[in-house]
Amino acid sequence: MAQKPSTPKGTRDFSPIEMSRRNYIFDTIREAFRLFGFRQIETPAMENLSTLMGKYGEEGDKLLFKILNSGDYLKGVDQALIDNKDTVRLAAKLCDRGLRYDLTVPFARFVVQHRDELQLPFKRFQIQPVWRADRPQKGRYREFYQCDADIVGSDSLINEIELLQMEDMVFSRLGIRVAIKLNNRKILAGIAELIGAPDKLVDITVAIDKIDKIGIEKVNEELAERGLTPEAIAALRPILEIDGTGDERIAKLGALLASSPTGTKGVEELRTVYEGSLALGLNAELDIDVSLARGLNYYTGTIIEVKALDAEIGSISGGGRYDNLTGVFGLDGISGVGISFGADRIYDVILALNLFPDETAQATRVLFANFGQKEAEASLAIIKKLRACGISAEIYPDNAKMKKQIGFANAMNVPFFAIIGESELAEGTITLKKMADGTQMTVKADEVAGIIK
Amino acid sequence: MAQKPSTPKGTRDFSPIEMSRRNYIFDTIREAFRLFGFRQIETPAMENLSTLMGKYGEEGDKLLFKILNSGDYLKGVDQALIDNKDTVRLAAKLCDRGLRYDLTVPFARFVVQHRDELQLPFKRFQIQPVWRADRPQKGRYREFYQCDADIVGSDSLINEIELLQMEDMVFSRLGIRVAIKLNNRKILAGIAELIGAPDKLVDITVAIDKIDKIGIEKVNEELAERGLTPEAIAALRPILEIDGTGDERIAKLGALLASSPTGTKGVEELRTVYEGSLALGLNAELDIDVSLARGLNYYTGTIIEVKALDAEIGSISGGGRYDNLTGVFGLDGISGVGISFGADRIYDVILALNLFPDETAQATRVLFANFGQKEAEASLAIIKKLRACGISAEIYPDNAKMKKQIGFANAMNVPFFAIIGESELAEGTITLKKMADGTQMTVKADEVAGIIK
Repeated sequence: MAQKPSTPKGTRDFSPIEMSRRNYIFDTIREAFRLFGFRQIETPAMENLSTLMGKYGEEGDKLLFKILNSGDYLKGVDQALIDNKDTVRLAAKLCDRGLRYDLTVPFARFVVQHRDELQLPFKRFQIQPVWRADRPQKGRYREFYQCDADIVGSDSLINEIELLQMEDMVFSRLGIRVAIKLNNRKILAGIAELIGAPDKLVDITVAIDKIDKIGIEKVNEELAERGLTPEAIAALRPILEIDGTGDERIAKLGALLASSPTGTKGVEELRTVYEGSLALGLNAELDIDVSLARGLNYYTGTIIEVKALDAEIGSISGGGRYDNLTGVFGLDGISGVGISFGADRIYDVILALNLFPDETAQATRVLFANFGQKEAEASLAIIKKLRACGISAEIYPDNAKMKKQIGFANAMNVPFFAIIGESELAEGTITLKKMADGTQMTVKADEVAGIIK
Repeated sequence: MAQKPSTPKGTRDFSPIEMSRRNYIFDTIREAFRLFGFRQIETPAMENLSTLMGKYGEEGDKLLFKILNSGDYLKGVDQALIDNKDTVRLAAKLCDRGLRYDLTVPFARFVVQHRDELQLPFKRFQIQPVWRADRPQKGRYREFYQCDADIVGSDSLINEIELLQMEDMVFSRLGIRVAIKLNNRKILAGIAELIGAPDKLVDITVAIDKIDKIGIEKVNEELAERGLTPEAIAALRPILEIDGTGDERIAKLGALLASSPTGTKGVEELRTVYEGSLALGLNAELDIDVSLARGLNYYTGTIIEVKALDAEIGSISGGGRYDNLTGVFGLDGISGVGISFGADRIYDVILALNLFPDETAQATRVLFANFGQKEAEASLAIIKKLRACGISAEIYPDNAKMKKQIGFANAMNVPFFAIIGESELAEGTITLKKMADGTQMTVKADEVAGIIK
């Protein structure tokens, strides 16, 4: 036999049971998006490389999957590039297109391309796979889905409050207890200003982002390595050690950052989002966390991160506000705020906590046995009626041994096995076997739908 | 401003209204698949080129999108291939992976790869995009969705009868009047035998497939060009001119093909599927069509094609039975039968016939006006309750001029516009404006859900 074919490294097939579970997650997220008024878009898997290159840093450019041009892809390529084996610049000639790396850049491209048709504020959601030529490892794949919701064209903090409500709805409905961590990039900027190191904002945030993992002393060592003065590090300490309730933290931050207009603005935004969220109520814990940084170069206001309380895993959702989504495509002034759900991690949490509903393990509601042509014809007529009632139903296609058919029903985790044999055919009845406990009952054809439902 | 970015040639963005309509089609198909007991799988967008190459003919190989290897993709590539600009063989070295071209080959790969975990018969469905480097033209794209359902591991003709019922359910629910055309490859083989040209089976079917378009005389000319003798062409004519009801056609075919065991088998299969389908009932027209051929190299039994009766467009669905799905991957004996729905053509038919439900043009059910902080807070609390009742609801995020907010509600095609202004806030009421006719009513907060639903 030929070599067994397989999926490319870092990619996956999804089996029926995995699809059922994934759909449960996607459907829950999609339904929340819909209830909040977000509207779905889709963009093509491939984008022009000119759209993608330079948007994810040098490292990101390397992780783009590039598509070889069709036809004579060497035509017009500078021979020197080939001779010098300058693979990076040569790739740019061999390939005009690449696979999307995330949903944000294609969305920015979408907004610019269709700006004349769009009504602002525009609330869009998008659930599609993305591709990264990362080294595959546990929990990291080369193809994975992102679920993004963004509002562009509105500065109102109501959007932040709504997004937190939406996070809360999704995780409440999935049964996952979560903490939503909240911060504001302007607070981080204010802190950098306050300690006299406004140019060190990125270094500060990269370092303090690790407090949870390595502790404050190690963070301080790293800050010193990154060139912060001992005075700056000492000034930072009380801010990082802020504790108490959310209200207390906000009050302390307000006092500490009073001299920084940017910091004060950040505290005010944080307060509005925090109080507005509590007023509406959340099932989730809502934590003010000054150490939360998240892709700082990109965000300019609110920063959000969601962690599962009962599972040791990184963040399962997050997002924030950005000032200039489309500037890179020459269209300024489009600000927005958005969140993203990590479907793979959410899947792992639900599986670990055994929270998938039983239905996700089931296929069809009722499988009819096959006793031959006449019985099958009678079964198919009833199956047709069941389907019209919304009940999934099927017949074992072959007249196989009953043991095999029942074994199949078991393997498929079918709740009901229905039998129309010779005697049932004569009497116009159906024998219905409940697979869970093996109990059997004989019912009339028009009673089946009611019992199975 | 920089050059306006765009999607690559032959690919499309889908706007919210397009997505809403597409989801209506996909949801209808998916629900039918589910009711019939098909189980969803997904495979990765990229497959190893070794999986894809040679499966679609030489022309198909050229239409595969190939992905440039990561890192130093020139390493180990024979210099002669580069110097000779042998782009076809060079591409095989530069690229290990390609984008899937259809859903059938990945499904075959899936069955072989996971054969130890699969219970046969396996009823799978798959709804995913595929990519072809075809020259883009009206209605032909480089990225498009396929919706496939197959049963593998069962020879029973009940599967065919079920698939026809499923076609009927999908198009009935979409409101599209269709004719389902039915034939059997064994009949075509029997015909080739009968007229003394069994080796000309492919030529005969390619030619007679065009009868609808060019007429029988032109077909006969083509058959002569393809090397059929005048005697064979004369013998073929009465078969191609078979007419009458389905039953009559089957009887005539049975008589004409009586001397061919293969042909007789085909007629018997056709009769079983035809009579079984009529016994269960179909909304669709069911036509026996001897000229139906459809990718004959692949199919070995039943052939199905669905055409819309009220639109001039090619087939909108089709499929058939095949003997050996996975033989190309070294696993013999897996036969099956399947159908595929063409989402883009179905979209065009529904749009042309104006059959999309009104809801597909709507976003949120109710948009609340924004009159400032206090009013917004009250609105958000009610919005939260509406969402808990399954009603999509949102607030205009900014306290903008009322004209702008109403204009937005109009543009979004929102059925209800809700106002909580100063007086409503004082009285604990909501003013609800029905956008269709402009009528307004003032209601209590707990009445809103009932009215909107």
